[in-house]
Amino acid sequence: MTRIAIPADSPFGLANLPYGVFSTPGLSPRVGVRVANTVVDLAAALGDDVFARPSLNPFMAQGYGRWVEVRERIIDLVSGDVPGSAVHPVGAVTPHLPIEVADYVDFYASEHHASNLGRLFRPDSEPLMPNWKHLPVGYHGRAGTVVASGTDIVRPSGQRKAPSEDTPSYGPSRRLDIEAEVGFIVGTTSPLGTPVPTDEFSEHVFGAVLLNDWSARDIQAWEYVPLGPFLGKSFATSISPWVVPLLALESARVATPLQDPEPLPYLQEKNAWGLDLNLVVEWNGQVVSRPPYREMYWSPAQMLAHMTVNGASSRTGDLFASGTVSGPEKDQRGAFIELTWGGKEPVEVNGEPRTFLEDGDEVTISATAPGASGASISFGEVRGRVLPAR
Amino acid sequence: MTRIAIPADSPFGLANLPYGVFSTPGLSPRVGVRVANTVVDLAAALGDDVFARPSLNPFMAQGYGRWVEVRERIIDLVSGDVPGSAVHPVGAVTPHLPIEVADYVDFYASEHHASNLGRLFRPDSEPLMPNWKHLPVGYHGRAGTVVASGTDIVRPSGQRKAPSEDTPSYGPSRRLDIEAEVGFIVGTTSPLGTPVPTDEFSEHVFGAVLLNDWSARDIQAWEYVPLGPFLGKSFATSISPWVVPLLALESARVATPLQDPEPLPYLQEKNAWGLDLNLVVEWNGQVVSRPPYREMYWSPAQMLAHMTVNGASSRTGDLFASGTVSGPEKDQRGAFIELTWGGKEPVEVNGEPRTFLEDGDEVTISATAPGASGASISFGEVRGRVLPAR
Repeated sequence: MTRIAIPADSPFGLANLPYGVFSTPGLSPRVGVRVANTVVDLAAALGDDVFARPSLNPFMAQGYGRWVEVRERIIDLVSGDVPGSAVHPVGAVTPHLPIEVADYVDFYASEHHASNLGRLFRPDSEPLMPNWKHLPVGYHGRAGTVVASGTDIVRPSGQRKAPSEDTPSYGPSRRLDIEAEVGFIVGTTSPLGTPVPTDEFSEHVFGAVLLNDWSARDIQAWEYVPLGPFLGKSFATSISPWVVPLLALESARVATPLQDPEPLPYLQEKNAWGLDLNLVVEWNGQVVSRPPYREMYWSPAQMLAHMTVNGASSRTGDLFASGTVSGPEKDQRGAFIELTWGGKEPVEVNGEPRTFLEDGDEVTISATAPGASGASISFGEVRGRVLPAR
Repeated sequence: MTRIAIPADSPFGLANLPYGVFSTPGLSPRVGVRVANTVVDLAAALGDDVFARPSLNPFMAQGYGRWVEVRERIIDLVSGDVPGSAVHPVGAVTPHLPIEVADYVDFYASEHHASNLGRLFRPDSEPLMPNWKHLPVGYHGRAGTVVASGTDIVRPSGQRKAPSEDTPSYGPSRRLDIEAEVGFIVGTTSPLGTPVPTDEFSEHVFGAVLLNDWSARDIQAWEYVPLGPFLGKSFATSISPWVVPLLALESARVATPLQDPEPLPYLQEKNAWGLDLNLVVEWNGQVVSRPPYREMYWSPAQMLAHMTVNGASSRTGDLFASGTVSGPEKDQRGAFIELTWGGKEPVEVNGEPRTFLEDGDEVTISATAPGASGASISFGEVRGRVLPAR
């Protein structure tokens, strides 16, 4: 038996306890919980085969009651002695994609981001579309290309046409970008024909991750009318390995910004699900932005209520993301197209002026949030490096 | 042993042999092949457990060589005596969703449909967007709400705003519509970073189904800018139970209409994959449209090449649909919004003027195609009835 050392200021202390999927040279992928600088093998520690699986889906599908119960058991467990064979140093494990993604939906919930993109993509129109303040605008993305943090991102090729060009050409994207987002993972299904009201959010959503919605802006700008983004996004979406349970985010809950006009009744919340998450974007190791999630106009409970209001079912493993998190200040913008204003205002990265991503660049997004009892909890990070086009 | 009677003019003869998933009161869902008016239980007839599964995915994942081999074995089998216990009258089985859908993509490949919708949705602009003739425009839909033919379609509710209204309201869709489409099913995966060239289409795509992309036009019109259709489509997409193998469609291959401007090289085809399928749309039992698939501007091989040109992977069970099949004539339009010109020109259905779908309406889409040796082969049908909003 061993006692896990949990420093009082650990961002992975008892207030956090995020779940992930890991392997070691001797163990096939399985569910673990991150505790301080260790990963606890839950199948070994709790003797429950639901954790001996290569994704969180079977456990998530067991529902809210089990999520509460297992969290309490883990707190009991790691507060005392743990079987030594169940404890691995975090540096000795390989993290994997934590979930099997069912459907992937990407929203567009930051007013600052949507306004900035509107100005950049449609300079001759109002920056926000007439629907934007009435509903959380979103679209379906490609579930099959959601990848684990650390997966290399090959620069995508495709059709691009600059406004100055007469015809499109084929080639590697010249405007490869990131979007710093937060992703929410559905644990409990809802059947066809049954919307999920905002006040049932916490019974359906298991937890949250950081998400980088890699974006080829030149491909996107040419293709996206009238059916929305497609190949400009579908080549890769990276998520962080540790799923922070919604149960760990109670202390992070805040009101969303004032919503005016008042949303339709199905979008109103009895209890606010704004979240005080503080994101940090690093470009080749240098912090270039600190997007504040509390500025997001639409809450994740409103996103789920909207996504299902037409009777669409939701499944265990559905992933829906917030859209780029951008605040009102320039250094709070979560996409480089905004941060550099379409490439016209370079930012300095390690002493060099930079606009879009170059081959070899690495981007890391991390986040912290207030946890229970004054703790600060960490989302870990989502990371990816750009490789040259093939 | 029994001999299956196959009339010479059966649209489910040896030139067709579509696969599906069926159950009986005594048998759990499993793979069958439709032969004339029977369904042959392949696990029982061929003694192969890959067919004792509730979806075609495990068999499809075995790849092109196996598809060819199994088709030959089935032709041998049903040309002689078949074990009686493996043969079921088609009327005695329950069909199920034939595949486990991975990602679902919907294209927009009919020039007639895209032009008509452009005129209806954006009357002040050019009907076709500048990108339309350069690439097959498409977007991701909701995989989790692809349902089996015969599933009732509950009228969706959501936000709608008519141009004459100042603000949106919540309520049941008032403009519920269909889209008559053909869906293509990926059998063989392609890994991240590896586009599928047009001339490898037949090694990756296992077969085709009929697809009804139910559409709430009022919800769609309000929500779709700038990220594309979402809740106006995601409540349900119905597919036909019998997957016609691509191997059965060799005689249906035709050239696509002239593509001008010439597509970029990655979209060019050495061998044409236009298809001479003849769709029929019935509204409450009355034929209202006969959309000709051979009029589609973009071929399915071009769709798959485009969908993967950015390096996006594809998975067994990926479903991509053509978009509404509409021909140049009014009675060849595959959506009621086109057929009734936005509801302004009602069509007569069983003696009554009709525009969009009413509760209780039933829509059936069927199709035939030329098969080998002069046969005509059938896609069966996809059918759904509208139930009132909940």
